[in-house]
Parts: sequence; structure tokens; C-alpha cells
Amino acid sequence: MTPEEARELLRRFRAGEVDEAAVLSAFETPKVADLGFANVDLQRGMRTGFPEVIFGAGKTAEQVAAIAQEILKREGRLLVTRITAAHFAAVQAVESSAVHHESARCITIRKGEFPKRAGTIAVVCAGTSDLPVAEEAAVTTEIMGNDVTRISDVGVAGLHRLLGRLDEIRRANVVIVVAGMEGALPSVVAGLVERPVIAVPTSVGYGASFGGLAALLAMLNSCGSGVSVVNIDNGFGAGFVASQINRLANQE
Amino acid sequence: MTPEEARELLRRFRAGEVDEAAVLSAFETPKVADLGFANVDLQRGMRTGFPEVIFGAGKTAEQVAAIAQEILKREGRLLVTRITAAHFAAVQAVESSAVHHESARCITIRKGEFPKRAGTIAVVCAGTSDLPVAEEAAVTTEIMGNDVTRISDVGVAGLHRLLGRLDEIRRANVVIVVAGMEGALPSVVAGLVERPVIAVPTSVGYGASFGGLAALLAMLNSCGSGVSVVNIDNGFGAGFVASQINRLANQE
Amino acid sequence: MTPEEARELLRRFRAGEVDEAAVLSAFETPKVADLGFANVDLQRGMRTGFPEVIFGAGKTAEQVAAIAQEILKREGRLLVTRITAAHFAAVQAVESSAVHHESARCITIRKGEFPKRAGTIAVVCAGTSDLPVAEEAAVTTEIMGNDVTRISDVGVAGLHRLLGRLDEIRRANVVIVVAGMEGALPSVVAGLVERPVIAVPTSVGYGASFGGLAALLAMLNSCGSGVSVVNIDNGFGAGFVASQINRLANQE
Amino acid sequence: MTPEEARELLRRFRAGEVDEAAVLSAFETPKVADLGFANVDLQRGMRTGFPEVIFGAGKTAEQVAAIAQEILKREGRLLVTRITAAHFAAVQAVESSAVHHESARCITIRKGEFPKRAGTIAVVCAGTSDLPVAEEAAVTTEIMGNDVTRISDVGVAGLHRLLGRLDEIRRANVVIVVAGMEGALPSVVAGLVERPVIAVPTSVGYGASFGGLAALLAMLNSCGSGVSVVNIDNGFGAGFVASQINRLANQE
Amino acid sequence: MTPEEARELLRRFRAGEVDEAAVLSAFETPKVADLGFANVDLQRGMRTGFPEVIFGAGKTAEQVAAIAQEILKREGRLLVTRITAAHFAAVQAVESSAVHHESARCITIRKGEFPKRAGTIAVVCAGTSDLPVAEEAAVTTEIMGNDVTRISDVGVAGLHRLLGRLDEIRRANVVIVVAGMEGALPSVVAGLVERPVIAVPTSVGYGASFGGLAALLAMLNSCGSGVSVVNIDNGFGAGFVASQINRLANQE
Amino acid sequence: MTPEEARELLRRFRAGEVDEAAVLSAFETPKVADLGFANVDLQRGMRTGFPEVIFGAGKTAEQVAAIAQEILKREGRLLVTRITAAHFAAVQAVESSAVHHESARCITIRKGEFPKRAGTIAVVCAGTSDLPVAEEAAVTTEIMGNDVTRISDVGVAGLHRLLGRLDEIRRANVVIVVAGMEGALPSVVAGLVERPVIAVPTSVGYGASFGGLAALLAMLNSCGSGVSVVNIDNGFGAGFVASQINRLANQE
Amino acid sequence: MTPEEARELLRRFRAGEVDEAAVLSAFETPKVADLGFANVDLQRGMRTGFPEVIFGAGKTAEQVAAIAQEILKREGRLLVTRITAAHFAAVQAVESSAVHHESARCITIRKGEFPKRAGTIAVVCAGTSDLPVAEEAAVTTEIMGNDVTRISDVGVAGLHRLLGRLDEIRRANVVIVVAGMEGALPSVVAGLVERPVIAVPTSVGYGASFGGLAALLAMLNSCGSGVSVVNIDNGFGAGFVASQINRLANQE
Amino acid sequence: MTPEEARELLRRFRAGEVDEAAVLSAFETPKVADLGFANVDLQRGMRTGFPEVIFGAGKTAEQVAAIAQEILKREGRLLVTRITAAHFAAVQAVESSAVHHESARCITIRKGEFPKRAGTIAVVCAGTSDLPVAEEAAVTTEIMGNDVTRISDVGVAGLHRLLGRLDEIRRANVVIVVAGMEGALPSVVAGLVERPVIAVPTSVGYGASFGGLAALLAMLNSCGSGVSVVNIDNGFGAGFVASQINRLANQE
Repeated sequence: MTPEEARELLRRFRAGEVDEAAVLSAFETPKVADLGFANVDLQRGMRTGFPEVIFGAGKTAEQVAAIAQEILKREGRLLVTRITAAHFAAVQAVESSAVHHESARCITIRKGEFPKRAGTIAVVCAGTSDLPVAEEAAVTTEIMGNDVTRISDVGVAGLHRLLGRLDEIRRANVVIVVAGMEGALPSVVAGLVERPVIAVPTSVGYGASFGGLAALLAMLNSCGSGVSVVNIDNGFGAGFVASQINRLANQE
Repeated sequence: MTPEEARELLRRFRAGEVDEAAVLSAFETPKVADLGFANVDLQRGMRTGFPEVIFGAGKTAEQVAAIAQEILKREGRLLVTRITAAHFAAVQAVESSAVHHESARCITIRKGEFPKRAGTIAVVCAGTSDLPVAEEAAVTTEIMGNDVTRISDVGVAGLHRLLGRLDEIRRANVVIVVAGMEGALPSVVAGLVERPVIAVPTSVGYGASFGGLAALLAMLNSCGSGVSVVNIDNGFGAGFVASQINRLANQE
Repeated sequence: MTPEEARELLRRFRAGEVDEAAVLSAFETPKVADLGFANVDLQRGMRTGFPEVIFGAGKTAEQVAAIAQEILKREGRLLVTRITAAHFAAVQAVESSAVHHESARCITIRKGEFPKRAGTIAVVCAGTSDLPVAEEAAVTTEIMGNDVTRISDVGVAGLHRLLGRLDEIRRANVVIVVAGMEGALPSVVAGLVERPVIAVPTSVGYGASFGGLAALLAMLNSCGSGVSVVNIDNGFGAGFVASQINRLANQE
Repeated sequence: MTPEEARELLRRFRAGEVDEAAVLSAFETPKVADLGFANVDLQRGMRTGFPEVIFGAGKTAEQVAAIAQEILKREGRLLVTRITAAHFAAVQAVESSAVHHESARCITIRKGEFPKRAGTIAVVCAGTSDLPVAEEAAVTTEIMGNDVTRISDVGVAGLHRLLGRLDEIRRANVVIVVAGMEGALPSVVAGLVERPVIAVPTSVGYGASFGGLAALLAMLNSCGSGVSVVNIDNGFGAGFVASQINRLANQE
Repeated sequence: MTPEEARELLRRFRAGEVDEAAVLSAFETPKVADLGFANVDLQRGMRTGFPEVIFGAGKTAEQVAAIAQEILKREGRLLVTRITAAHFAAVQAVESSAVHHESARCITIRKGEFPKRAGTIAVVCAGTSDLPVAEEAAVTTEIMGNDVTRISDVGVAGLHRLLGRLDEIRRANVVIVVAGMEGALPSVVAGLVERPVIAVPTSVGYGASFGGLAALLAMLNSCGSGVSVVNIDNGFGAGFVASQINRLANQE
Repeated sequence: MTPEEARELLRRFRAGEVDEAAVLSAFETPKVADLGFANVDLQRGMRTGFPEVIFGAGKTAEQVAAIAQEILKREGRLLVTRITAAHFAAVQAVESSAVHHESARCITIRKGEFPKRAGTIAVVCAGTSDLPVAEEAAVTTEIMGNDVTRISDVGVAGLHRLLGRLDEIRRANVVIVVAGMEGALPSVVAGLVERPVIAVPTSVGYGASFGGLAALLAMLNSCGSGVSVVNIDNGFGAGFVASQINRLANQE
Repeated sequence: MTPEEARELLRRFRAGEVDEAAVLSAFETPKVADLGFANVDLQRGMRTGFPEVIFGAGKTAEQVAAIAQEILKREGRLLVTRITAAHFAAVQAVESSAVHHESARCITIRKGEFPKRAGTIAVVCAGTSDLPVAEEAAVTTEIMGNDVTRISDVGVAGLHRLLGRLDEIRRANVVIVVAGMEGALPSVVAGLVERPVIAVPTSVGYGASFGGLAALLAMLNSCGSGVSVVNIDNGFGAGFVASQINRLANQE
Repeated sequence: MTPEEARELLRRFRAGEVDEAAVLSAFETPKVADLGFANVDLQRGMRTGFPEVIFGAGKTAEQVAAIAQEILKREGRLLVTRITAAHFAAVQAVESSAVHHESARCITIRKGEFPKRAGTIAVVCAGTSDLPVAEEAAVTTEIMGNDVTRISDVGVAGLHRLLGRLDEIRRANVVIVVAGMEGALPSVVAGLVERPVIAVPTSVGYGASFGGLAALLAMLNSCGSGVSVVNIDNGFGAGFVASQINRLANQE
């Protein structure tokens, strides 16, 4: 339960639409669900605006499915990142409506209706090879209730491709920019827009890209103001930050 | 001139408060002022929400003063970062109302009234030695029109110091967290608030801190969601991003 | 034979419980057993408190089994770390009571009774993915005669999970803290306990974690006093140090 | 007030040696003293066994003196590390009994009697150039109530120097080993003693020592069991850990 | 003597404008002038197109002056890089027509007339702080006989500044691009021109720029084709390469 | 269409060899072909002298084939780098004349006649293991219209091998030097020729070569003037730069 | 043909044991055998004392066999390093007397008698996992005509193992010391012997050993005089250097 | 006393040239002289062939003078490295015959006659700026009894300078090669000589030389066989190794 959901529940209680028991039950959530191998944080939604997101890498399919099941007892939305096909199969067995985003390596579950926020988040990526990371960012922001504009393959080697899409980018509330190799795109974009730019370096490249280090350093040293950076290949992190910002823009 | 100022000007023109000549003059700004050693970007305010900020390091006092003078021809606010006493003296000679923020190593100039935004930005720092960087962030956000809450010396080695200030932090729209050494504070804060956290690693430390690298890596790998990172000691960058976010929250 | 075992033997001899020949035989241990490919250090138990531990990685199953057999001629306890299933099969063929700790990738053998020390060692880990390293630490301390309290998945992103287990942690004589990613947990724990904290960085993470480097640097730069650090993923090393400390606390 | 001091106070109250008011006053300590630029952690002694230690580097002489004065209101012992002559002058003005340890770059203050712990801590260093770091470790352990055995210039290039002092080293409860350059000494010592070894890499060296990185990596990869490591040049950290361990050995 | 000068000499000999003795004398150059502390390479002009350039850093003023004197015995042009005022004074004492380029930290000497090549070399720099490196490149190409177009302070944060100068840049035969911080400018320029781009990273920046490493890696990983890179702050190297290329374009 | 092709087309139009419609059609090229997953840059040939080159790594065979097909609609030449057999099969299905360069991991397509430039480009490599990178450079320069001289296995450990081929190298307009391990060859070559040297470090080596870093650093620090460097293993980049230079030498 | 073999040939010619034609034929060796993919250096034996050694890694089995065949036309001894089983099979097909050293990953061929040098070379290694590198060193020195003393598993964690073998080590003319992890062994050995020590870091270790970097740095910073270092895992290099030294000791 | 000196003493005793008391006195040397701040190793000469060398850096002038005085009680030769003028003044006060080698930053003392070894050691350096390191190597080998051939400024950028001195280099028993920047010279030399090459990287360079790292890595990865490497700027270490090798060549 997020703060927005809590506020809606209380509004409906005051309006007589739900009874006291429902309210008490919703607020009786324990802080933690101890599964032995994991301490599921049941208050994260209330504290940070979205239920605990499951990081699939390094967990077995069974572990992921068990955590997912635990969270779904109380929440209507779920995001699992860095998954394999095996993870998806196990989660689908638990909840058949689970959606597999293959390129983004994510699972999303959405039970019931959730309102869309006003404003869009632009996910801009430099090259075709950066698409999986960009998709992870896009899927993250969407499950959290935001509209996304995807703008792909507009790297700085052919600047007219970026300039041709500038109007769309400028309409967004937040701009996520995903790039590997020399990581120049966020600097260029930040000089052209008045909104926060979240830069995501990717490990796309070879040789002296050192697994994304070159792009990471470039983004941290951006001469364009308004750029902040997340970890290499961390599309999820960028999407989460962007969603937090758009949530604020929506006065939630 | 920022987009907000432009909109206000047009509103006043339509309301008959200013005449056509004033509007035309305001919009006639050339794109660039070429000073020989510098190309001052005269459209940055319109494009990114605040006039070009002067980075003092590596520029002579005369260069900084000349650029400041050029910008002040058209803008009412100015920020100069990374300055020395000599820089300040030269700028003060050009504009006597210039303010010297010694700890933050900044100059600000504010000619006329500028509205304050709703909402505050919290600047949280881990130790006393991190204060100069935190001040640079605070001064930056203030000159850009935001209210700041300063919370200092609440590093994770004595967690109750942080927990005792949590209510203040939670009231902020954006939280800037400044820390050197192991850089753990942003991860802890991000787990406790629902607002975007901008993490600023500092070069405070010795030995294997490698000039702030340890804190930088820790922040990039934060297990807490909602953290994005700027360059080591880049208080200005964090303040600028926070201000962009708060501007969005104010629907500007 | 450890110093404690030697003292016990002499006490029993003086008490007439064992005869002279047994004592002489026990003390006649040669310094080294030369297996050609290995020089087994037969005095390590006497010198450092536990028989030589076999590091399985980079050794063939046959080599490990042969060294194990050599040590078991004189010692009642054995620990093999970093093993594969093939290593276990070979050791089991030599000593059927061998125990395989799969998650910890260890083999332990315990022939006869060994006294438990007073006091416990807490093994605290940040996330589910850190469990194998934490288990290696726990198995190591247990075979060396210590009680272990396991506390898992209490990373700093949900601080209440840690605070909820604080009493258990504070009761321990030594606290091993295992964490990957940003490695913040040892700093937080060290600020809350009065006992030595042994920090173990893990290679859990991606991108700018650089195989555990981020966590390692964070732990070395911990602002919390009382933290010392072992190599990345070195659960065994942490367990060994913790056992040495607890042994001292037991006046052995 | 440390836990030992608290226990002693209660024992004396029960024995009628101090009155109720004294006990209440001692326990009424606020959690934090807010000096504006610093949040002095007044519970650290109770929580970790020694009052907050002041890290001098990056603080002005006035800041250090003010924090010292605040702590001395409630505590009888004080340690300031990484100081300059100016820091010492300012502290001495506040408390004339302050002692300046020049080589160790520390200040200690000891008002009244404090009991010595049983057992000694050996501080072993590899070369003459490592002495300042070794002294910081020694001064730290002494002010915290421990006996120290100093053993200097016994690097591995002349092994007989180390072997000639081995008996003294083996008598210690904890061994701190300080070394720069290739950092081999802790590995050799750990193979010869049965007590915990705290390794301190120093920045002594040139070229590929990279400011102590070579020694740090060597110590983290030590093939000798029972070694844990602190930051480069962190004599204080090693002394603190050693004191915590010896405190445990004394059943405090 | 460069190959062009040699060919001109032979042409004049055949035309009867110089006598045999002059030709023999010109070709009798020994390979090396041994000054004890230096082996001046007297054939470098013939072999690579310009006389040996003196690298001033790490040489005394006397050494530089002596080498300069030696080269000037046979050559009409000289370049000394990375000099101090003391170097210039010593060289000026040897040859009064020496010119001091302060910002570029270079000395040039030009005795007699040397033809200018057709075509220009553009030296483009990102920020005011990059000017000294850009000047070193410009001075180098000029003394070697090329026309230079200087275009300064056109970093990517304000793209219109670059686009406004694009025609000038496109007219050049070779483009040298100098940038610090994130080093994005060469990638953007390379996408807009059809001529070779020589990228020069500078050490301008702080924190995670690591002395120019960030810019260097960005340039090596440039997604724009046609970019090659020289060492950090190596304006001379870029100027030399550009001159070699323009020489080829002139069919020399 | 490259600028040369455009100029030829206009010449033929003026000469009455082609009609107006053909000219208009050739110049009507849109700027970008949007394939969804890729924005093919259709003006790159005009802007940089060769149609967009497809970087195969990280793209599916289908994506590569689709982009190839798109480019071939308007262009007569195509280069695909970093391919696998699957990529080749897919491209061959689209255009049967595609050529697979296995060692170079490239595909080239050449439909119709293209003029050869005057002058050759030498591709010199240090060892047999560097051949794939050298081939990538050679194939790149050839498809772009240049003659190539291949000189292999002439590393500095047997200097006479290099000196024996010096005449051939000196005849080239541009020299590409490919080397792994210590990367010394470009420095030696640059001292012997008067033409631009493009250095390509390779990842050939082990241990402290760190994936080509040793060779890269050596080349960037070359004491030989006239050396510029591309990314590790970037044969394509070197070939492209060399072709740009030779194009200039041909006054195109 | 090595210089020793050449001198022997001339001695036998003067003594009438071989005829003129044989001498001429032996000296008629061309400098290089060009195999297309390789330039075999036929004078290396004469120039450096042993025929060209074939580095197998990155070459096909066919390439290795062809180079081997070429060398064997003129030389009686051959060494191939870093081979796989496939390489051995191909070489064995060319020369059936080829010997496969599996642990050392080498092939040696010895046709006819070669004299042994006086003096031995000690190959000392720290742990069982370092054996393959130590064997490469031993096999290299043996094929080059030296006696080897192998001393294994004498790492510094059990110093008595090393001290027990000290007499053997001291009898050697040169000492090769092979160690991974913290790389302390060469420093200890160098302090105990009066002969040159060649240190070989290995990639044995994990975590912060960074593929042998920790051991490499330790060895370069050795406080023991008389240590020089070769690349990580470069047993061949150490063996070659040791053989050169022993050759000198034998007045060859 | 070195082993050679000891053997000479015994020979003279047997010949009746010295009496028993002199022999006994000479052999009665204690192992260590404890000066409090230093443990002077009095057996190093016997164990490694030359008395303990004093490393001046990080020691006070008084400490260096005291250690020098202690060693001179028993030894006739002394070497102090990395000194300042103050160190020299203090040592000269103790022993007036002390010689100051300014460029090499060394002090040597030679009391009485010491025999010269046969054979020379070549010290080859790449550039004028490398001279101080080369001189440290030369001074070291000379005080240890070897003849030195100095060959300076023969870097690979002008290969004929090196080839012109090749005969001298080939006559040496050992070749020390000193180079900064790209560090290519040892690889080239090793391919041309049949004697051991000791490579010394220097910190000469800038930018991506990273304080000598580039040269160090190049030398470790040398494709020329017979190269071993010492620490950056470690002229002493190279001289010591070379002297050990030449001593062996002299059958000492």
C-alpha cells in the first residue's frame, strides 16, 4: 500500500464506502514477512511509494516466486527485475496474469486498476544495443503509474536524429537518457531541456569502455547542468527515480 | 530570462502593464555573447531555467568578472562557483551587492525580487568536514528560488542523530545527501523517505577513499531505491538538479 | 592438536588418565608432511589454534582427499573450503562422516566430541544473495567450536529489519557483517554495538560494484569505529578471525 | 561514560558510596550535543565503550576545541587524532593537561584514574618510516586502557629481527602489524601466533605502491589466517579494534 | 632540413642557383649531436618533416638552451614545449628572436621565410579552461607552416554555440578538438564533418574526472567515426599529427 | 551518396549524361530511416564520406539484415563489423554478393564500380595474434576505396624484421600500426616515417596487459611524434581515420 | 644456432672435424622465414642464446606446427608455451619425439645431445595452486640446459616449511619464486639468499587479488633487495631470465 | 662483511697474515644493532653480499647519520639513497669522505680499497629526463664494485641513436634499461642482446603515464625475452640486481 492508496482508503472510509474492519485490516500490515531466506519489507510501499521490488539476479526461481506470493497478499502491483525464463515460469505459476518483458528482463503484475499520473517520462537511448536497459527503465516507470515516451537510436554521431525528436523530449516531465560507449548523450540533452535528466550508462562498448566505466565517468563529469547518474545498466534505478519525481510533480 | 520570467512578462503585456518595446527588447537577446576567451550562453535561462552559472576554477579573476558583467546586463541573478577571494574582489568591483559565501566558495548576486517556490529542499550531511560541499548545494538551491533545510553531522556511525531529524527530512520535496568516507548515508536515507534523493560523494577521507572514489562507488551501488548521484564534491550539481525537481513540483 | 587440546592431554596425564606413551606419541608430530604436491603444515593447530584448513579451489579432488587423509591421521576436526561436488565425493570416500555444506561450499569433519565455547558469534548479512558467503563464515566458526546466531536480509534499505534484531546482535561477542553492493551495513552495525565487527564485502552487485570493490572500499573507509575487513567473499577468513577473538574471550 | 563505568557507578550506588542524585545525573545525558557545525554523539561511550573520538583533519582548531570541551563536560578521557600544532594549542587552552603525541599526531587527555586492562597489545612495525602510524595505534590503545608492547623495524627483509622478538609478540592478546611497501609482515606474523592480527597498510613507499594500495591489497589477500585489515595509515582504527578485543578478553 | 627543403635545395642546384659545396654541406649533417646529457637527433627533420622538438619539462634552462643552440646551427625553425619563464630567458639569450607563447607554454623561433601550406587546421575547444592546451596545438601547427582557425568555448552544454561555427569548422582540412570534463565534443564534431578529427582530452575537471581520464576514455570510445586520440593535455601531439596530415594534403 | 559521388552526379548532369529527375531523386534522400529499433542515418555518406557502417555486436541477425537492406536502397557499398556467421547468413539472404571476411569478422558489399584512390595505406602488425584486428583495419580501408599494403609479424623483439620492410612502409600515405602486449611498435615506426601513424592497441596478452590497457597506455605516451590512437581492438576506427586522411590527400 | 653452438662449430672446423661446406651452410641462415601469417626470426638463437620460442595462445594448431617445423629445420631444440592438447597433437605429427608437459602447458623437443650447465636454478613456489606456473618456469630452464631444484608449497603462512629447505635454495645460482595471493614469498626469500631472485606473481587468489595484481604490486614493492619481477603467470619469462643469468655464470 | 671479504679473511688467517683475534672479532658481529628507532641488520652483508643500504626518504637527517655511523663501525662501504642536502650534511659530519651524488640523490662512502669485478654493466636510458634514475642505478652498481658504461638519450623515437651504441651495450654482462613515457626501450634492447635486461620504468611523462604506470605495464608485457622489471624510479633496485648477477658471473 502506497501513501496515495492509504489516503484513498481513508477518503472512502470517511465517505462510508468501506467499513472500519477493512481499514483496520489494511493498516494492520506487519513490518516484515520472514521467509527464512528473506525478510520481505512490507512497509516499503508506505515508506517509499511502491511495494518492494524483487531483484531476481542471484535468487532461485523458487525464492523469487515465494517472495512474489508474499507481496501479492497485500499489494496489487509487483515488479521483478533481472530475471530469466525460469524465474518467469515460477512466478507465472503463482500468478497467471504475470507479464514477461523479455528485452527488459522484467516481470510485472497488475491486479485491478491503478490511476495514471499526468505528465510523461521520456526514455531516450543512444543506440540499438542500449535498448534492453532503456526498456527496463520504461517498464519500471510504467508499472509505477507513469506514461512513457520511447525515443531510440538518437546517439550524438548523427545529431539531426536527436534534434528531430527534441519537441517530444521537451514535453516530458523527466528525461531518462541511456547511453554506452562514450556516454555523451546526457550532456547534449541536458543542454537542450529544462527538466531533470537521469543518466544511465550502459556496458555497451568494448576495449577501453571497461564495462561501462567510460560512459559512467563521462556522465558524472557532464558539463551540462541538471544531470544525475545511476549505476551502469541500472535502468530500474533510473525509472524509479523518474517515477518519484513525476509523483512529486503530481503533488502526490 | 527563465521561462517563468518570460511567461510573467507576456502576462503583464497582455494586461497592459508593460509596452511592446519592452517585450521585444527582452526577447531580442542574442544567442551568444562572444568575449573572445568565452562564448557566454545567453539563452541558457530560457532553455534550462537559470542563467549560465560561472565555474570559477581555472578562470582568472578578470575573466570571471567580465562574464559576470555580461550576464548581469540581462539577468537579475547570478551564481559563481569554485571561487577564490581574488575572484570575489573582481566581481564585487563590477557589482557591489555581490555576496561571498566563504565556506561554499560561491558568489551570489540577486538584483530585485524573485519569488520563492513552495516546498523545501533538505541538505543533509554526514560529517563536519562535508560542510563546504553541503553549503555549495544549499547556496545553489537558494539562489534558484528554493527554501533549504540544513541538517548536518548526522552520519551513520550514530544513527540516532539521523533518526532524530527524520521528520524534518521527510517534509522536504527533495533530499540532497552529502557524505565522504564510506558514503553510506544516502542508502540509509533513501530507505526512510519517499522523495528523490540526490547523493553527493565528497573527497573527505584518506587512504583507500582514493579522493572520494569509495563514497562515489558506494552511492552508485546503493541498495536503496530512489538515489541518483552527481560527481565527487559537486554540491552545485546536486543543488541544480534538486532545484529543477522542485520547480517541476511547483508546476513551473 | 590445538594448544587447548595439548593442555587437556597434559592435565589428564598428570591425573593418571592417559599413559606416558600416549603423551609422547601426541607430541612426536613431525612439522611437515610432504606429499610431493603439498607440504601439509602439521603444527598449525598448535601454532594458531586449529589444524590446517584446506583451500579447495585450484586443487584436484584427489589432492584434497589426500591432504584431508593426512591431517585426519592426527586431528579430529577438518575444514575444507571452496569445494565442488567432486571434491566432496573424494573426501567422503576417505571419511564417510564428512558433511557437505552446499550453500557455503564447505566440507566439515568432526570425529569425537569437542567442547563448545561460551559466547556467540553473530553472522549478519545484508541480502539473500549474500547468504553463501555468510554461510561460509558461519560453518567456519561452528567447526571451530563456537555458537552462531544467523541474522539474514537486514540491509540498510529497510532499517527497521536491522533494528528489530538488534538485541540478538548485541548479545554476541563478535559480529560478522556480510554485505555486497554499497557495503553500508558494517558501518551502521558498528555504530550500534560495543563488540568487534568483522566486515566481509561480497561480489554481489553489478556495474560499478566492480566485483565487490565498491563494498570493500566502503568497509575500509567506515566511519564507524571497531570495523576491520577481510577480502571480498572471504567468509572463511572472517569466521576464523571471529573464532580467534572468541577463543581469547574464553581465556583459551 | 562507558558500560564499565556505568556498571561501577551502579555498584557504588548499591553499596551506598554515591547517592541517587549522582546516578540520575550521570544517566541523564542527552543523546546529542548540537554545536551547529557538529552533532556530538554523547552516547557513544555507552554504546561502543569509549567516548566519541575527534578526527582533527578538515576541522578548524576552534571546532576541535569546542567539541573537546563539550565531551569533557561528561567524560574523563579524550582522544583527538590527525591534528596539527594549531589544533593542539587550541585544545590545550581548553584543558591544560592535554598531551601532544607529535609523531602520532594525536592529543590525549586523561582526567582522574582509569583502570588498566590485563593483557597487552603488541604494535609491530616493519620499518622506521612506518613509526607514525604505529604510534597512532599505540597511543589509541593506551588511552583506552591497554598495555602496549612496541616492536619496531622488524620487516621481512631481515627475518631474524622478527624471530628474535617472537616471544614478546606471542605474549600479546592482540597483535597490530603496521607495514608499507609490499605489506608482507602481517602474513608472516599471522603464521607464527595464535592471536588475532590487525593489519595496517601504510602509504610508505613510492612508484607502484600507489599510496599504500600495494600493501593494502597484499594484506587483504594474506595467506595467513586470522588477519583482518583497516584502512591505509589508519593506526587509530587498528588501535580501537584491538582495544575492543582486549576488552572482551577482560570480560568487560 | 625537411624533405621539402631538401627537394627545394636540389631544384635550385640543378637550376644553378646554389653551388655544389652548399649542397654537400647541407647533406653532410651528422646523425646525432652528442651533448653528453643529450643525443640531439639531427636527422629528424629529414625523417619526419620537422626538426627535433624540445620537450622542456624536466630539463634545466641550460640544457634546453644548449640543445636549442645545437639545432639552430642547421635549422631555421625551432619549437620548445612545456617551458617556464626560466627556460625562455635562457633560450632568448641564445637567440634573441625567440617568441614566448605564455598561455601555450611554448617557445618558437623562425629564422627566414617559410612557405605557408594551403588549407587550414581548425582548433576547437570546449571551455575557457581548455585554452592553454588548445593554444599549444595551435602554436605547434603554425610553426610547422599551417594556417589555424581558433574556435573556443563551444562545449556541448550549449549546442547552438557549436552549430553557429560549423561552417568554419567544415572548411578545415583537419579538426583538432580539445575538451576536458566528459569529453563529449569530439564525438559531436565527428558526426558533423568529413575530415579527420584529432581529439585531445584535457585534465580540466575535478572529482571523477581523475585528471583527464574520464575525457580520455570518452574520446577513445567515441561513437563518431574518424576520431583518433592523443595523450591528456597533449596539444603538441595533436598539432604535430594535424600538420603531418595537412602536409600530405599539400602533396609534400 | 558521398560528396565525391554527388559532385560526379552534378558533373554528369551538366554534361547532359543524366536527366533532371535522376538528380532530384538522388538528392531527395530523407535524413533518417526509422526502423523502430534503429534510426538509420541516411545522410552520413554525404556528411562524413561513407554510408553508415553497421556495428554488428549486440544486434540480432535480423536487425543487421534489415538495416543493411535499408542502406542498400540508396548506396552501392556497405560495411558491417563485429559479426558472427549468423549475421552473415542473414545479410547474404538479402544481398547475395555479400562477402564474408572471417578473420576480420566483417561483411562487405560492393555493387558497381568505385574508383580507387591514389596512394596506399600500410597496415603493420606486431604479431600473428594481432592479425584479426589488422584485417578489420585493412578490410575497412579497402571498401572505402584505398589500396592496402599488409605487413605482418614485425614486432620489436626482432627489429630486423621491421627494418627489412621499411621501404614499403615509407611509401604509404598513412601507416596503421597494430600491436598488443607492450605496444611498442607504433613508437618505433613513428620515428622512422614522415607520415601520420594511427596506433591500434589490441587485447593480445595476459596478466598485466589488462585486456589491452598496457598497450593502450604505451601508445598514448608514445615518445614518437605523429602518433594518434584509437580504442583497443578498434581496427575499424583506424581504417576509417586512415581513409579520411587518404581521401584528403587525394583532394576529395 | 646459439653463440655457444657457433663457437663449437668453428672449433671443430679448425680441428678438421667438419668441412668448410658444413660451416658455410650453418652460417647461411636467412634472417627470417616468411610463412605469410608469421615471420619466424631465424637469428634469435644467435642473438639471444636460444631459438625463437613459440607462444601458442591465440595461434591455431596448424600455425604452431608450421612454425615448429620451420625452426626444427635448423635447430635441435624447441619450446612451445601456452598450448592446448590440440597444439600438441599437431606438433607431434610433425616431430614424434615432442614431449607434452601437461601441468606446465608446454611442448619441448630435444634432438641430439646438449650439454648441461653447471649450477642449479631453484624454482620455489608458495602453494599447490601455483604449480602450473612454477612448472612452466622449470621446463623452460631445463630445455635451455640448466639443472632445476623444485621446492613447492613453502608459503609464508608456515615459515618453518621454507626455513627447512633454505640450504637447497641457497645452493642455487638463481632463485625463481612463484606466488599468488599476497605475493610475500619473494621478499622473504630475498632477505635470506645472496643470489638474484626472479619473482613471478600468479593469478591464484580471488576477490581483491584482482587476477594477480595484488601479488604483482607486492613484488614490485619488495623491501628485499635483489628482486626483479616478470608478468603475472609468466613462468616462461622467469625461466628465460634465470637461464640467461646462469649462462653468464657459466662464462658462455 | 660480505662473503667474499669473509673468505679473504680466512685465507689470510690460514696464510698467517692476520691473527686469530682479528678473525674472531670479525665474526663476532651481533645480528642486529638496536638504535630504538631502527634495528640495523648487521648480517646483511654476509647474507646478501653488501651491507644494509640506507633508504633516506622518510628518515630524519639525524636518523640517517646515526645508522650510517653504526654500519661504518664494521663495514668499509656505505650507500644511502633518496637523500636531501640535509641528509648529506649530517652524514658528512660523521664521515668526512662521504661523496654526494646530486643527480642520483645518493651518498657513497668507500673507506680503503675494494677490488673491481670483471665485466661491465651497461646503464642505458631513453631520455635526458630519465637521467636521475639512471644515475642512481649507476652509482649503486659502482659502489658495489662493478664497472659501468653509461649510454644516455637513446630512446626509440630515433632508433639510429641506439643502434650506433649497440656494440658497447652488447659487451656488457648485464644491461639496465631506464625509460619513462611508453617504456618501449627495454623491449627493443632485449631483442638485440643476449644478456639479462633489467628494466626500470620512470615517472617521466604526463597525463596517461599515470606516474610511470604506463611504462611499468609496457615493460611487464615486453615481447622481448630476458626482461625483468623493478619498481617505478627504482634505480637502486636495478643496480643491486645487476650487481648480484655480475657477482655471480665473477664466480663470487
